[in-house]
Amino acid sequence: MSRRLLAEAIGSFFLFACVIGSGIMAETLAGGNVAIALLGNTLATGAILSVLIAMLGPISGAHFNPAVTLAFRIRGEIATKEALLFVLVQLVAGIIGVWAAHVMFDQPLIQYSLKPRTGTGQWLGEFIATFGLVLTILGTIRVNVAWVPASVGLYISAAYWFTSSTSFANPAITVARSLSNTFAGIAPVDVAGFVAAQFAGAIAAVWVAKLLYEKSG
Amino acid sequence: MSRRLLAEAIGSFFLFACVIGSGIMAETLAGGNVAIALLGNTLATGAILSVLIAMLGPISGAHFNPAVTLAFRIRGEIATKEALLFVLVQLVAGIIGVWAAHVMFDQPLIQYSLKPRTGTGQWLGEFIATFGLVLTILGTIRVNVAWVPASVGLYISAAYWFTSSTSFANPAITVARSLSNTFAGIAPVDVAGFVAAQFAGAIAAVWVAKLLYEKSG
Amino acid sequence: MSRRLLAEAIGSFFLFACVIGSGIMAETLAGGNVAIALLGNTLATGAILSVLIAMLGPISGAHFNPAVTLAFRIRGEIATKEALLFVLVQLVAGIIGVWAAHVMFDQPLIQYSLKPRTGTGQWLGEFIATFGLVLTILGTIRVNVAWVPASVGLYISAAYWFTSSTSFANPAITVARSLSNTFAGIAPVDVAGFVAAQFAGAIAAVWVAKLLYEKSG
Amino acid sequence: MSRRLLAEAIGSFFLFACVIGSGIMAETLAGGNVAIALLGNTLATGAILSVLIAMLGPISGAHFNPAVTLAFRIRGEIATKEALLFVLVQLVAGIIGVWAAHVMFDQPLIQYSLKPRTGTGQWLGEFIATFGLVLTILGTIRVNVAWVPASVGLYISAAYWFTSSTSFANPAITVARSLSNTFAGIAPVDVAGFVAAQFAGAIAAVWVAKLLYEKSG
Repeated sequence: MSRRLLAEAIGSFFLFACVIGSGIMAETLAGGNVAIALLGNTLATGAILSVLIAMLGPISGAHFNPAVTLAFRIRGEIATKEALLFVLVQLVAGIIGVWAAHVMFDQPLIQYSLKPRTGTGQWLGEFIATFGLVLTILGTIRVNVAWVPASVGLYISAAYWFTSSTSFANPAITVARSLSNTFAGIAPVDVAGFVAAQFAGAIAAVWVAKLLYEKSG
Repeated sequence: MSRRLLAEAIGSFFLFACVIGSGIMAETLAGGNVAIALLGNTLATGAILSVLIAMLGPISGAHFNPAVTLAFRIRGEIATKEALLFVLVQLVAGIIGVWAAHVMFDQPLIQYSLKPRTGTGQWLGEFIATFGLVLTILGTIRVNVAWVPASVGLYISAAYWFTSSTSFANPAITVARSLSNTFAGIAPVDVAGFVAAQFAGAIAAVWVAKLLYEKSG
Repeated sequence: MSRRLLAEAIGSFFLFACVIGSGIMAETLAGGNVAIALLGNTLATGAILSVLIAMLGPISGAHFNPAVTLAFRIRGEIATKEALLFVLVQLVAGIIGVWAAHVMFDQPLIQYSLKPRTGTGQWLGEFIATFGLVLTILGTIRVNVAWVPASVGLYISAAYWFTSSTSFANPAITVARSLSNTFAGIAPVDVAGFVAAQFAGAIAAVWVAKLLYEKSG
Repeated sequence: MSRRLLAEAIGSFFLFACVIGSGIMAETLAGGNVAIALLGNTLATGAILSVLIAMLGPISGAHFNPAVTLAFRIRGEIATKEALLFVLVQLVAGIIGVWAAHVMFDQPLIQYSLKPRTGTGQWLGEFIATFGLVLTILGTIRVNVAWVPASVGLYISAAYWFTSSTSFANPAITVARSLSNTFAGIAPVDVAGFVAAQFAGAIAAVWVAKLLYEKSG
């Protein structure tokens, strides 16, 4: 495995294990107050994202997310073959991360989420969330590169709260979260709607980033 | 639309959608504990502000706020015509952001807030909050430019808690929040008092910033 | 007033208003859960400290604290006369900040705290808290100057939780907090014990900083 | 004592006092809601770690952790004799930090934890937590050195939530926490399992860091 694929594997493993694991921890301890559970889940997810981007960004770009990989493919900054390998690694390593969380918390390894997440409001949420995420990445890389790790972690921390879907914003994590019947889960039947909205948001962000950061004049 | 106006539009959309959306999310989940709701609302607002300034500051200055635009107009750092366009875009894109939050959370699009926010204490709060916000911006730009994105996000995070009004500190967001009968709302009749206090705070900050950062000797 | 004194006045005003104001806000909203109240109080205090140091540090050093001013006096980095003026301004502007918080939250202007804070445990807490604060400042200035604003904000955020006194660590704020019968208050009779422990901690930190950062070899 | 050993002593003292002290504070105030207690404990621990690394990293490397010292020993970046002294100082100063927390909170000095922490899930948690911690340190030192203090603080903040063991990730702190029958404690009989998992995670991280950051091609 190349160093770049290894970086995507390690990052996806930790990101997905953190999303699922902190969701289990938070829901278990929060005594039914979902806002407190979401605070813990948000804190952990935003923090690990910033760390993983700081340590792995210089190796692979720190995508951990097929929507981000698609955005860089459209911009011609990654080859098609490597992009497909990135997505494969994100899915496989990410799902192993979900399973690691299950083992750590003494849960059954194989699960399927029963939590419905669907409807126009949530799809708009995923479109906006992914649009904002990809625009944040493309923008800060261009005009404020030292802020990339902090920006992505902070953006997702905000988006967990301002979208009705709690901002999955990542097709691979959407698939992986369907395999966990815990706080962060999503019913398998609802995955397709989320993924479609996410890719649409990513494509829109590539176009707007061109207007914002590359237009002459 | 110029790149600068587009940056103000995108930033105002995300900022206002985040203030309203995270307020709805937080209040819905917090089970009646308003401090927990305000924690979620604060975390999301402070985080998105820092991100938007990091990614859009180098394009438009990342005002998203007529009080900030006024401060730069007084200092002669933006032309009157562009300043007026900035304010127009902040209002229009920001209100669209509020409506996007309503759609995401399956709420009626058109709402008017019933939440009274008035009185000397809150007006003093808005004066102090906006004074501090504008002084933070003018000061860090001058002496610590790498800290501008973090400072503004952190300042608003603090001000949400130390002012009795929870620190709107932004005339456009005050108008927009009157169009949402949710956690972050303000009754339309109370908007004028807040806006007057905010502009007064901004003007005072321009004067104090001159004493602090530009006076000879 | 010199620019340096003005910076100390503005910083002390905002710091003290924030400590008191966010305490009132947090306690009012937290429904009796003191941990939630302390989270809000901590978030606001840590955030404003980082901002004030980022924007005012290059002007006055951003002391806002007689224990810090004493440390710099011992090291010969500030003249006795200016040090005394600094302490005077910290006290006067800080108390005005406390009163501003009272006005913002519609409370009586003049108050005296009834909250006892005394005993060996709390005095040791204030000694350790102030020792750590001054060592953080002297250390990061010497070896990691870009981290000074973040470090001081983060240090106080931690110290609010790991000391039994919730880490006042500042003689001026101790006096000012005795004038507010709210969350962050301290009974006037208990001020002297806290202030003595704080100055002792600051003096110890100057000595240890010498060993750590200046010893030859 | 050399400056480097003094730095390890001060850092371990503050880190361990903070873990124990903030745990006591959080549990005392949280009214039985463990998620709220863990939020306070996390905030304080992550914050102090970042500060201590910013101020002491340039002196000693800011290990405060035998697993980290072992990793640098394997890489040949510290001599065996100094490594052993580092571990001794981490243990002694750290335990004094635990006792200082007991005194600050008016608790008996000498305690032994009764809290069981054992089982495959928690051992896997400690392996993953320490693997991630050491990889974060080795990685950011290599590719993003300005992010080392933030990364370590944020990593531990996340790991407190995504591992079932709340991420001790430090053999010295595991020993020290067995001497406190409070929120952050661990029964002495369970220390060995945690420590073994932690050293295994550190060794694995040294190997993976070699693949990620040093392999040619």
